[in-house]
Amino acid sequence: MKQSKHLNDLIDALSTLPGIGKKSAQRMAYKLMRTSTEKTLNLSKKLSNVTSMVGNCKICGIYLDNDDVLQQKDNQNCHLCISENRDISKICVTESPADVYTIDSSTDYKGYYFVLDGNLSPLDGRGPTEIGIKRLEHRLEQGNIDELILATSTTIEGEATSHYVQQLSTKYDIKISRIAFGIPLNGELGYLDSDTISHAFRERKEL
Amino acid sequence: MKQSKHLNDLIDALSTLPGIGKKSAQRMAYKLMRTSTEKTLNLSKKLSNVTSMVGNCKICGIYLDNDDVLQQKDNQNCHLCISENRDISKICVTESPADVYTIDSSTDYKGYYFVLDGNLSPLDGRGPTEIGIKRLEHRLEQGNIDELILATSTTIEGEATSHYVQQLSTKYDIKISRIAFGIPLNGELGYLDSDTISHAFRERKEL
Repeated sequence: MKQSKHLNDLIDALSTLPGIGKKSAQRMAYKLMRTSTEKTLNLSKKLSNVTSMVGNCKICGIYLDNDDVLQQKDNQNCHLCISENRDISKICVTESPADVYTIDSSTDYKGYYFVLDGNLSPLDGRGPTEIGIKRLEHRLEQGNIDELILATSTTIEGEATSHYVQQLSTKYDIKISRIAFGIPLNGELGYLDSDTISHAFRERKEL
Repeated sequence: MKQSKHLNDLIDALSTLPGIGKKSAQRMAYKLMRTSTEKTLNLSKKLSNVTSMVGNCKICGIYLDNDDVLQQKDNQNCHLCISENRDISKICVTESPADVYTIDSSTDYKGYYFVLDGNLSPLDGRGPTEIGIKRLEHRLEQGNIDELILATSTTIEGEATSHYVQQLSTKYDIKISRIAFGIPLNGELGYLDSDTISHAFRERKEL
């Protein structure tokens, strides 16, 4: 049976989103067809906006609006990197800009950030160059940094990236730290994987 | 901490999609930022395409591309409604165009279809007028129909809609049928809800 080509095209495009399979994409597309044209066009516009109006801070790598940059009249640096109220001796390395927002809103950390382009994943062709290790080395060479905090994920790729950066940073004579692994707060042991529990047990702290 | 406004706008727009909460929308938006601009613009374009290039068949209500309509030079009727190979004496009522594709590809049904604009849901302000009952009555009045097949969902709203259409159709002197309820094929009883099992048991068929 022949279906609308444009609708099928939309379903294909939606199913490239993370966590969205064919069925969910269909559900979304049909829902959009039922809702107002305005809402669909709004989503379309927001998508095209981010491609043209959002860039990365040239220093740390977090996202920033291009119009903010113009207002600040600076070299595409974000408000964190040009702030004079932050601790210039600390730098926190994350695998994505999203993690910067999470860390900044959850902790009292007041140092600088550095965002890698994801984690090392040789099988997917993502080596040190691809994830921006060169930029990080350049940043470390500028000096003034006392502590490098590794805040990549605790996945295999995140661990590999953390290990790689650690090895590479030894030559700069700075303190290198990694965020703590263990049982999440308010976490029930029964719901956690055995790797986490075994790690938490092995790394128990004397009180 | 200040975040990109355009990125936040996109996250808000994505989280209006069905089944997508704030966290999933964030994940999608950040994924899109990491992938090529082309892919994001493609999704944006497909969204705006469906708003301008897809319409409904004026007879049955399924989606069809406007350019197909122009090629056919007819009054926006779909290939099913203008086909001469279908059984004009049967009409199947569904709650969405998606269900038409599903039924047409899963069964050997060769009659016509009629798509309602969803189901009756008085609490959401969806009465008979809103779901297109008038159009259905108009279709039934044209005559030639021997059997009306009710294929709305087996949810409370789907059942209510089916019941309403059944009551309304009695005056046309046609056979009215409802798709069968029961245990799905290859279904394990242990995974099914008790309502389904109790219904299947009550409606057991003598062999």
